[in-house]
Amino acid sequence: MIIVIHCKDQIGLVASISNVLSAHQLNIISMREHVDVQENRFFVRLQVDQTADEDALQEKLQRILPADAIITINPLPHKKIVVLVTKEYHCLADILVRNYFGTLGASVLCVIGNHGHLGDICRRFNIPFYAVSHQQQTKTEFEQELSGVISSYNPDYIVLAKFMRILSPVFVALFHAKLINIHHSFLPAFIGANPYRQAFERGVKLIGATAHFVTNDLDEGPIIAQQIIPVNHSLTAADMMKAGKEIETSVLAKALRLVFEDRVFVYRNKTVVFE
Amino acid sequence: MIIVIHCKDQIGLVASISNVLSAHQLNIISMREHVDVQENRFFVRLQVDQTADEDALQEKLQRILPADAIITINPLPHKKIVVLVTKEYHCLADILVRNYFGTLGASVLCVIGNHGHLGDICRRFNIPFYAVSHQQQTKTEFEQELSGVISSYNPDYIVLAKFMRILSPVFVALFHAKLINIHHSFLPAFIGANPYRQAFERGVKLIGATAHFVTNDLDEGPIIAQQIIPVNHSLTAADMMKAGKEIETSVLAKALRLVFEDRVFVYRNKTVVFE
Amino acid sequence: MIIVIHCKDQIGLVASISNVLSAHQLNIISMREHVDVQENRFFVRLQVDQTADEDALQEKLQRILPADAIITINPLPHKKIVVLVTKEYHCLADILVRNYFGTLGASVLCVIGNHGHLGDICRRFNIPFYAVSHQQQTKTEFEQELSGVISSYNPDYIVLAKFMRILSPVFVALFHAKLINIHHSFLPAFIGANPYRQAFERGVKLIGATAHFVTNDLDEGPIIAQQIIPVNHSLTAADMMKAGKEIETSVLAKALRLVFEDRVFVYRNKTVVFE
Amino acid sequence: MIIVIHCKDQIGLVASISNVLSAHQLNIISMREHVDVQENRFFVRLQVDQTADEDALQEKLQRILPADAIITINPLPHKKIVVLVTKEYHCLADILVRNYFGTLGASVLCVIGNHGHLGDICRRFNIPFYAVSHQQQTKTEFEQELSGVISSYNPDYIVLAKFMRILSPVFVALFHAKLINIHHSFLPAFIGANPYRQAFERGVKLIGATAHFVTNDLDEGPIIAQQIIPVNHSLTAADMMKAGKEIETSVLAKALRLVFEDRVFVYRNKTVVFE
Repeated sequence: MIIVIHCKDQIGLVASISNVLSAHQLNIISMREHVDVQENRFFVRLQVDQTADEDALQEKLQRILPADAIITINPLPHKKIVVLVTKEYHCLADILVRNYFGTLGASVLCVIGNHGHLGDICRRFNIPFYAVSHQQQTKTEFEQELSGVISSYNPDYIVLAKFMRILSPVFVALFHAKLINIHHSFLPAFIGANPYRQAFERGVKLIGATAHFVTNDLDEGPIIAQQIIPVNHSLTAADMMKAGKEIETSVLAKALRLVFEDRVFVYRNKTVVFE
Repeated sequence: MIIVIHCKDQIGLVASISNVLSAHQLNIISMREHVDVQENRFFVRLQVDQTADEDALQEKLQRILPADAIITINPLPHKKIVVLVTKEYHCLADILVRNYFGTLGASVLCVIGNHGHLGDICRRFNIPFYAVSHQQQTKTEFEQELSGVISSYNPDYIVLAKFMRILSPVFVALFHAKLINIHHSFLPAFIGANPYRQAFERGVKLIGATAHFVTNDLDEGPIIAQQIIPVNHSLTAADMMKAGKEIETSVLAKALRLVFEDRVFVYRNKTVVFE
Repeated sequence: MIIVIHCKDQIGLVASISNVLSAHQLNIISMREHVDVQENRFFVRLQVDQTADEDALQEKLQRILPADAIITINPLPHKKIVVLVTKEYHCLADILVRNYFGTLGASVLCVIGNHGHLGDICRRFNIPFYAVSHQQQTKTEFEQELSGVISSYNPDYIVLAKFMRILSPVFVALFHAKLINIHHSFLPAFIGANPYRQAFERGVKLIGATAHFVTNDLDEGPIIAQQIIPVNHSLTAADMMKAGKEIETSVLAKALRLVFEDRVFVYRNKTVVFE
Repeated sequence: MIIVIHCKDQIGLVASISNVLSAHQLNIISMREHVDVQENRFFVRLQVDQTADEDALQEKLQRILPADAIITINPLPHKKIVVLVTKEYHCLADILVRNYFGTLGASVLCVIGNHGHLGDICRRFNIPFYAVSHQQQTKTEFEQELSGVISSYNPDYIVLAKFMRILSPVFVALFHAKLINIHHSFLPAFIGANPYRQAFERGVKLIGATAHFVTNDLDEGPIIAQQIIPVNHSLTAADMMKAGKEIETSVLAKALRLVFEDRVFVYRNKTVVFE
């Protein structure tokens, strides 16, 4: 059983929590704890060796913890997601395959594309695909159509798997803390459009990818995971883009696993990640 | 203040420990805990935000923990080491430089070489150097001379920084759990002599280095840290050896830091490392 | 246009080759060359800026090169493969997805499984799937059935994408230099069965995967690519296996790309890889 | 023998060059070639199996190559360097150790510090140390004093080994293409002061270091080498700085090796590096 807690810090929190667990005859197998001293925040993720009455446990923990405590018990198998895409297949296909074989740690409810290119791969896996074009309508109308489809599925997370449209603050606010994006650079380097072209022009020796929660500032949300691969002078910008797809796929897969296993806490513009 | 505990596992250990800390008004800044379920062992490393009466704390913890508990409070700045070398300088020089600038996390008491090559660099840093040749005496005599010098310094750890002689079980037993070696391969691949030649012959695409505690079986002790670097067909065995030195230096430096900061627990033939 | 040459070494080879190219008004964009001095072998991979009459070029090159020269001109888009699997899906699904989107650099002709588990995913991508069980027949009969199906497709390569049966020398000889395997360890560590269990028992801090050509000695063929990921005490053998699947997928994908782009030369028990 | 050539591209360059080598009975052991098609530039690095009359070879190559060709024959063992430092020891000590043991690939002529902190370590290795303070004089005077000392040694390269002063365009122009800097971030992320603080605030999951040639734009010169290490929420800005020093040392060491072995070509604001 997994127990995840986030609250303001105070002396004796670990004692209080572990006393409650001990009283339930639960032995702690592994425990990851972090205190942000500057911000006075407490984060803990516990794995215990047995299951217990979840409601009773939740109630007892709530009683001994600060009022702002967010307690999640046994969260693992319940996430539901919607995936937004444009034309590139690599991240979506990886998600669809894991979903099909039951190893995603979440269920894909549907996929929405602002182009129709990826409809066929979704149909092959029996996942509903919605083509919601950004063309011939205003951005507001486009986002309303998007959010209409998304909301009808009531997902826990919306995954932007190479969705190449910038979303408005209104849209982002609608799905606060639920939007996960894969950006094709090692943020904060090469913010914005065409990062591989930028990387090529700058002559960098590494390129990267960043999975992050989406906030109103473009490519500025809390970072969940980042990875890089070495490159050199022999790669064109197109080669870098091709090589980058591999790392984008694996960074997004890693970030989703961490989020779906409740290993990621967001606080201010940062994350605490108990890998 | 750092508190490190290793004992057999039982329900309520974290509660008991954190109750003691809480009673001392100590707030836990970070906590790393591991239970080896198979072996029923409990390992914890705590960082608390203030100092307290170490003796009183030790006594109280001893009282509430299983009888086999090993409790170490505030261990950081006290390690003393002896370094054994042969002819290669890279690991030794790195240790001497960190020692000189006070960033090693330990003090180098002396260096012993079975060749005299590295005496000069030691003298430049005012570190006693002993040339103890393995030639013109039996292995037993050689090891007695070695252990005589080592014992006269009473070190916490003996670092084999590219010491190219195999030590007898008798010698190893004398310094049980104190001998740290850097092996120039990614163990358990290429055990024994000339691993770079073996790696070259096998045509591997990565070479590595392994820092480990020394036990009686050659290159078989508990592993502390490992790292690799990519290689390819264009490297000769000599090139691999040269490239490998970089990784040997950095793996040994990392392993020593982890050990000196009391982040490494040894149990059976493995380590628990709270990085 | 890509030109790949492998022959015995002699003085003036580069001059002879580049004279021929220059005479055809071909400019060399990039050139990777390696001489194995010990074995007196010459390897070169050239990319030129235009196309030319392939037959004329082949003939002229043949004339000026040693008699044993293997010359391949413009090999890129013609590879055909058969994939062998057991139950694990990760490598196969990655191959099927790339095949479907036209980025594999090869065509998947069919998939053969010694279990039926992966038939459905193949059917979803319209790839013929053959269930060839190793049960209720001798190994010889099993391999004859396997080789019968394979030979009927006449593939350039047979990819063992987590095919968990050991193949006999007779079978290996049938498809000499065409069998590519992904082994779930950092060879030569943990040869044979259950490498993750072995890695767990040994307490290593890195686990890896190796893509290699198959020869008669188990897990002893020429290595094409290797990669590792860090692990620690908190992972069980099952966790390592799960983490390892990610690296297996990406190492095999990389090795296939290198082979399909004619960047890999096999000589004796090693490879020359021009990445 | 190593031969390095950089010139404008044209058809037949490799043929011309290899004909000259072949006429001198030189066999090419390894050859790295790159053409920047966009810029029409040709770069080649050749290793041949014997030595030859360098002057005769140079003359013949000059005759057959474009007029702008820069030809360097057998450059390896002749580099001389001056090192500039402030207070941090890690990069300097690494350079001094390699210099002392003859593995730097260059000779350290002297070290200049704008603080006196690192004088003692230099004296221990018998390397002249000049304390040139930036205080109590104008920037112009400071740089004149610096350049006076540097020029008196006539070095091939000036290595800024954590030299924490920004240099003026006048100074940079004086030592055009000779200044090598180590910047403590993964450029172009976190340009300028205090990159570890910036990285901490942004909550990145990787930190890096970049070795580059210095041009007039701060941290904007051609990149030679970059590397990263993973970090997480548990590291303070100070921890990141400490962890970063390891990677700074190793990136600078790598960049210097590449430059000293004539593996680095600078063209426009990029490098071609034949690793």
